[in-house]
Amino acid sequence: MVSGIQPSGELHLGNYFGAIRQHLELHERYESYFFIVNYHALTTIHDREALRRYTFEAALTYLALGFKPEKAALFVQSDVPEVTELAWIFYNLVPVSTLEKGVAYKDKVAQGLPANAGLFNYPVLQAADILIYGGTLVPVGADQKQNIEICRDIAQRFNRTFCPPDRSLFPIPEPLIREEVAVVPGIDGRKMSKSYGNTIGIFDEGKTLRKKVMSIVTDSTPLEAPKDPERCNVFALIKLFADEETRNRIAEAYRRGGYGYGDAKKELIRLIDEHFAEARERRRELLKHPDYVMDVLREGARKGRRRAQEMMEQVRDLVGLNYATYRSEAS
Amino acid sequence: MVSGIQPSGELHLGNYFGAIRQHLELHERYESYFFIVNYHALTTIHDREALRRYTFEAALTYLALGFKPEKAALFVQSDVPEVTELAWIFYNLVPVSTLEKGVAYKDKVAQGLPANAGLFNYPVLQAADILIYGGTLVPVGADQKQNIEICRDIAQRFNRTFCPPDRSLFPIPEPLIREEVAVVPGIDGRKMSKSYGNTIGIFDEGKTLRKKVMSIVTDSTPLEAPKDPERCNVFALIKLFADEETRNRIAEAYRRGGYGYGDAKKELIRLIDEHFAEARERRRELLKHPDYVMDVLREGARKGRRRAQEMMEQVRDLVGLNYATYRSEAS
Repeated sequence: MVSGIQPSGELHLGNYFGAIRQHLELHERYESYFFIVNYHALTTIHDREALRRYTFEAALTYLALGFKPEKAALFVQSDVPEVTELAWIFYNLVPVSTLEKGVAYKDKVAQGLPANAGLFNYPVLQAADILIYGGTLVPVGADQKQNIEICRDIAQRFNRTFCPPDRSLFPIPEPLIREEVAVVPGIDGRKMSKSYGNTIGIFDEGKTLRKKVMSIVTDSTPLEAPKDPERCNVFALIKLFADEETRNRIAEAYRRGGYGYGDAKKELIRLIDEHFAEARERRRELLKHPDYVMDVLREGARKGRRRAQEMMEQVRDLVGLNYATYRSEAS
Repeated sequence: MVSGIQPSGELHLGNYFGAIRQHLELHERYESYFFIVNYHALTTIHDREALRRYTFEAALTYLALGFKPEKAALFVQSDVPEVTELAWIFYNLVPVSTLEKGVAYKDKVAQGLPANAGLFNYPVLQAADILIYGGTLVPVGADQKQNIEICRDIAQRFNRTFCPPDRSLFPIPEPLIREEVAVVPGIDGRKMSKSYGNTIGIFDEGKTLRKKVMSIVTDSTPLEAPKDPERCNVFALIKLFADEETRNRIAEAYRRGGYGYGDAKKELIRLIDEHFAEARERRRELLKHPDYVMDVLREGARKGRRRAQEMMEQVRDLVGLNYATYRSEAS
């Protein structure tokens, strides 16, 4: 299994329920490579300090949330620079027209924003990221389906173009599309997203957390009146954290009336605190030992790079970059 | 000085007078990096054996023609894979629209041919090839002016985006545009070009050379009649090889009459034989010692790679890929 982690700044509840939780569930089940995609982040982040901080934070977050580095490799994308070489080889198999149809690229253009070639080439580097580890399973959101299609297409083209008829180098990866979790609402009720500025951070706590939760938008039904939990942003978040019993209890209180949104918000804070208590503690410990985080990343990179280099040796041989053996084979 | 060598198969007189001769003149004058661009060749060559053979042949040709490996680095592009990493970083500074205007890419599209992303990204890898060695001087044909412009633009953008105000990493390279040599005609009178199948190879000799020269297209002025040397393909080639005295002598014979195209062709063969005698001998010797050729390429790659790695260390630091120092600097 192969998966990229976006180093896009503070990770929030939307990221947690959207991807991280699934990653944590899966990383012990398969031989896995998880990498923080700082090369990809360069398509939008041109700020040295931000990129370094986000990269470190992403590692810290995964480890705090329970990622077990002895079970799967966790590393930083740029510690395996071989992926950029493989991407170069892949460009030569991808029609420009395929990349012109890329969703992220098209969105930018549609918004009238200048799109750089990094954004344009994004799916090809992603394909290299997957195939260099011989990835067969890629957990992704539905919005990434197109990119996995491009990756499958590249793998097939490479096998057809450069491999002998009886042998193929790259397995064709399968997307593991996440079942849609209920949309995670942000404090303004829209989908929680960094670009809306409506997020609750995974590690928000105390006053910060309280302030954010208390400002979640609700309607103005009075305290005494019965309320529909299914139409409430607070309850949508409660559902993500609560077990069935708690969920039912709170839903009933909503419907019965005499239960205010303020009560629900306090309950939500309690649930968040409880859910992340251990992770927060672990994060504090990790922050005292940044060298441990670096050791984990270094060891993960060692594993990833070894695998990548084995793959690249075969790739270079198949496409003909290994001129050095030419004369001896020919003679 | 930085220059790429195309591994495009048998090198011919058009390549020789168009670029190779200039490279040979210059390589002793500047600190130089010459590399055989096998990554770039992948945009069109998807044939393992051909690419390996062309790569080896290109090295052999330069060495046979007098390239002095102790004066300048000669190596194979893919032995410095760092260029593909730098290219990735550069994509994020290049608007897609700039690459859409690329001449080679536009030509393909205009011809209705499917263009791959390798061809599209070609100028960015070329920029990485130049800037990774801190190249300041790039000998090119007039058709490469656009790509050098793109390279200059990338260097400026990088310096502006990622460097502190008082410091820039990349010098802005200058093209060293070749003075136009007289067009080298092929045996059918059109410009000598591999794609026209009208070439005379640098190392053609004996029967092969004779057959090709004898088939050079001329008009049908009878032997006795005076002829205009300036309108004759044979004379156009003679001019490239002959010293002034010989050139004048032959031109006079043309104008006087009684001198046939067959005579001129024999003279051309003699001139070619003479010009390349030493190079042919050297080539035969080198073919007996392919390990020497490999040693040269290995040593060249060592020099190139050391320089490239020094540059990449700075690049990675400036863009923020070096997360590893983040915590220690922050604390």
